[in-house]
Amino acid sequence: MSAIDVLWLPAEIESDAPRGRATVVIDVIRATTSITTALAAGADRVIPALTVSEAREAATRTEGSLLCGERQGLPPEGFDLGNAPGDFDPATVAGRTLVFTTTNGTAAIERARGEGGEGPLRLGCFRNVRAVARRVAADAAPGGRGLAIVCAGRRGRVSMDDAWCAGHLAGRLVHAVAGVGLTDGARAAQALSAELGPPTAAALARTAAGRALHGIGRADDLSACAALDDLEVVPVWRAGALVKGGEEDV
Amino acid sequence: MSAIDVLWLPAEIESDAPRGRATVVIDVIRATTSITTALAAGADRVIPALTVSEAREAATRTEGSLLCGERQGLPPEGFDLGNAPGDFDPATVAGRTLVFTTTNGTAAIERARGEGGEGPLRLGCFRNVRAVARRVAADAAPGGRGLAIVCAGRRGRVSMDDAWCAGHLAGRLVHAVAGVGLTDGARAAQALSAELGPPTAAALARTAAGRALHGIGRADDLSACAALDDLEVVPVWRAGALVKGGEEDV
Repeated sequence: MSAIDVLWLPAEIESDAPRGRATVVIDVIRATTSITTALAAGADRVIPALTVSEAREAATRTEGSLLCGERQGLPPEGFDLGNAPGDFDPATVAGRTLVFTTTNGTAAIERARGEGGEGPLRLGCFRNVRAVARRVAADAAPGGRGLAIVCAGRRGRVSMDDAWCAGHLAGRLVHAVAGVGLTDGARAAQALSAELGPPTAAALARTAAGRALHGIGRADDLSACAALDDLEVVPVWRAGALVKGGEEDV
Repeated sequence: MSAIDVLWLPAEIESDAPRGRATVVIDVIRATTSITTALAAGADRVIPALTVSEAREAATRTEGSLLCGERQGLPPEGFDLGNAPGDFDPATVAGRTLVFTTTNGTAAIERARGEGGEGPLRLGCFRNVRAVARRVAADAAPGGRGLAIVCAGRRGRVSMDDAWCAGHLAGRLVHAVAGVGLTDGARAAQALSAELGPPTAAALARTAAGRALHGIGRADDLSACAALDDLEVVPVWRAGALVKGGEEDV
């Protein structure tokens, strides 16, 4: 079994991929960037929801929770916060439970929970990619449980920002861990990342997701999405929610 | 609408992609390489079949046809030819109808026929990529019908060889046609191809499909798969079969 796999789309989860691997879900623009930012700002936990109505029900059941997320990029009616990294400042989210629904990111998390089986599920983005690499290095190493990096994509299509970040993570692991094996998907993502170099807001602005953000007047969100290694938090799935994993979560 | 799209997997056809575009299906190792080779060797037409039993039935219905293809890389029992480019020499295939079934390539062709709608469907590989680029340049140009390059992939997973060739085709079109737009999938494939450079048999041997060929003693097939621009034939879908398109097929 190859030790590092990149799934360019959640649809690849349906195939005959091995089970029980560690999983990292990536949706750079913007869900996994926002959730990582929210936990770094002190949010207690993030409960992902597939649909707006599921999110509303979960928020009703969870006292003191904040309802967060987007449809067509903007917060649905009655939501407390959107899906912009800048929405999640400590004054707003510290100590709170966030119920979170987005078009692509939370759907990918749901599907990846099936993929992972018994393996740990984490979220990655450019902001925390160094920290993620540290957490999953043993999984990716020969003899480890294997690592599946799942790109959220955009409405069922390949998304440049996610594949780029997935390849960046794969590349870091290749340099950090001796003897790592890579699937075709991982090698392609790593080559893509090598060609593109480090992320910039300007480069993210040329992706489909970046152009869509520009179209709704949210291009400023791209600076946070392009920030590299400025957060140490790695969201990890535990007891029905994403929480801030410690170094001991491995 | 972006003028050049690359679908990294046939699963992307299920999404909300635009209809009526020109389509090029790519399965470098080995189906589209073999079918291109067969038509270049003088085969009259190639009828793709999804399953081995469909292929047997189609061959029975079609007098003088040859039954070709693979499962687990090797010709099923009773097949006349496999899926190796070298199987299709003029002495064997000239003037014949080939019924063809493979694990990934013919399935991708079937799905792409739905994607294309009214648009023309062609097959590409490294051997004919220059000729393909010439045929689809007008589709990819601003004001054209748009171009969808569909990677066959491997059992539902991204395949390095297909994405590489798709990116190579996209890159040629970007240089040849002014003002071409690209989707994220096309840009990612083009960046991958730029990073990898021209194909070699040694590089194809490191892909998942290449390693599988090695495992069944067919690594020699990779030289034909890595040959660049040595064929002018572009298989095109017409009246239920793939035939050798002329320059007038545009």
